[in-house]
Amino acid sequence: MKELANLMNYRSDVKVVDATLRDGGLVNDFYFTDEFVRDLYHANIKAGVDYMEFGYKASREVFDETKFGKWKFCKDEDIREIVGENDTDLKIAVMADVGRCDYKTDIINRKDSPIDMIRVATYLNTIPTAVDMIEDAVNKGYEVSCNIMAISNAQESDLKVALDILGKSPVNIFYIVDSFGSLYPEQIARITDIYMEFAKKYNKKLGIHAHNNQQLAFANTIEAVGDGVDYLDGTYAAMGRGAGNCAMELLLGFLRNPKYNVYPVIQFIEKHMLKLREEGVVWGYDLQYLMTGLLNQHPRTAIQFTKDKRTDYSEFYKEIVVQD
Amino acid sequence: MKELANLMNYRSDVKVVDATLRDGGLVNDFYFTDEFVRDLYHANIKAGVDYMEFGYKASREVFDETKFGKWKFCKDEDIREIVGENDTDLKIAVMADVGRCDYKTDIINRKDSPIDMIRVATYLNTIPTAVDMIEDAVNKGYEVSCNIMAISNAQESDLKVALDILGKSPVNIFYIVDSFGSLYPEQIARITDIYMEFAKKYNKKLGIHAHNNQQLAFANTIEAVGDGVDYLDGTYAAMGRGAGNCAMELLLGFLRNPKYNVYPVIQFIEKHMLKLREEGVVWGYDLQYLMTGLLNQHPRTAIQFTKDKRTDYSEFYKEIVVQD
Repeated sequence: MKELANLMNYRSDVKVVDATLRDGGLVNDFYFTDEFVRDLYHANIKAGVDYMEFGYKASREVFDETKFGKWKFCKDEDIREIVGENDTDLKIAVMADVGRCDYKTDIINRKDSPIDMIRVATYLNTIPTAVDMIEDAVNKGYEVSCNIMAISNAQESDLKVALDILGKSPVNIFYIVDSFGSLYPEQIARITDIYMEFAKKYNKKLGIHAHNNQQLAFANTIEAVGDGVDYLDGTYAAMGRGAGNCAMELLLGFLRNPKYNVYPVIQFIEKHMLKLREEGVVWGYDLQYLMTGLLNQHPRTAIQFTKDKRTDYSEFYKEIVVQD
Repeated sequence: MKELANLMNYRSDVKVVDATLRDGGLVNDFYFTDEFVRDLYHANIKAGVDYMEFGYKASREVFDETKFGKWKFCKDEDIREIVGENDTDLKIAVMADVGRCDYKTDIINRKDSPIDMIRVATYLNTIPTAVDMIEDAVNKGYEVSCNIMAISNAQESDLKVALDILGKSPVNIFYIVDSFGSLYPEQIARITDIYMEFAKKYNKKLGIHAHNNQQLAFANTIEAVGDGVDYLDGTYAAMGRGAGNCAMELLLGFLRNPKYNVYPVIQFIEKHMLKLREEGVVWGYDLQYLMTGLLNQHPRTAIQFTKDKRTDYSEFYKEIVVQD
């Protein structure tokens, strides 16, 4: 149980990261209108959000540019088109996936870029490449986080080895990622303890990125903030892959720092997110995501179930139970 | 932080209460088909659910029987029509609201009734009448719980006085009720501590009934079970007033007691709940409920907003902020 003071008061170290374009882009292949992106940028500024993740720096060798919206690639000039010189308190982030990013060429020096932070996403088995990407980005002047994915399937001992390697790298932030939405708050607390051990040893900050398969993305995020995690990912209307993420409107409603303001988030959702849903873009909690979360599986089967507009949940359950 | 053992193992004292007909009935004025109720009864048996709440024992003096489905009144013969002699492990519960139940006449002796448990629902200022109802029900042979509503608006000292009075009554279970869906897990933990103090003193059990305004109904329920609360309310597909309740499918997925089985719940939702939604019955998390939860207000304004099919969330926010 956390202290009452933590609910009434706030830690000024807490930072809110809007991941709507990046995780939400996985739902609509990054086809957001410029108006959407511009309004989101201004809503984040008004809401007091600390970082806005614009999307991926995906390799144009690996992915066909004609098959995705521009925020899968986040060219500096496209970001610049939205933010200009970004003379605001809102910092700009992009995600760089290990093995799917030409970071040496596509990420230029920070002083010439509108981007402030590179979020390196890796699995446990690609940590050495992640370290190379981290060093590259730090050398170019960026703040850098490392998001270790799929940890709910990992051995604790492997995770500790990874955190020790990352601790020795110049990365600024370790991110706890509940990729499958399978973790309960008690588990988040224990995982945070492990991350915190290495964060303290190596003077790093912690972040959390949650998924809503079991309607726990927000609950897990506030569990983590009570345990000392500073960087909190949220998305507007919880838009994100599969069951979606921690809803920004819930998160800002919870945080007591007066710099945060939920009202611009509500306005944005009213103007843009209802329309997206009407256009047939589908995300959010549903039984198929609960099931993959419960079974600690990647949600890809559930996403396909959603795309196929299936509603035979009990048949799906039998399919994925057998699959394991 | 709870012990890992609690996640892997289970307390056999934990009981699951299906409140779908009762809290869900508030959404559709209790107009459930007999097939729905019969299938729900059988799903509960197969799922290992411990109690099924059929609805309210509402006064036919206060409410017009022609304006509601029969589960607002839960006549013994209507329950009997579904359950026969109920020769199963599933117990039958009904809710009796203080001031809206002719308990002296409408609740007959348990030995002549299919009902096992009376759930007395009260506000803090009607505790003396609640005690009278509790005594009446216990004398007639029932298990009895007392659900104190709207505690998030109450003074802690008043709550303690109420729990002390109830402690001296023959009630079996104190229920923690988050009527407005405004409480965070940390607050649930602290409130549980208060309830537990009186539960231990007077040898009572604890229960929890949560609402999902901030997507915390499930999170708050599993927080409570970790803190020693035994009776857990859930509803299929979270059907319930406004933002709904703790989803039965999430709850049974979480509980590790092998007697529970989520599959019949999934089957029921597939067959019945999708249809209800298609027919226009609306419940579940949405921005208007987040807002009333955040402001610790009764959701009635949000329910009206939903009924009016409004989507001007930001206007609604301004209305309810001013209202306070």
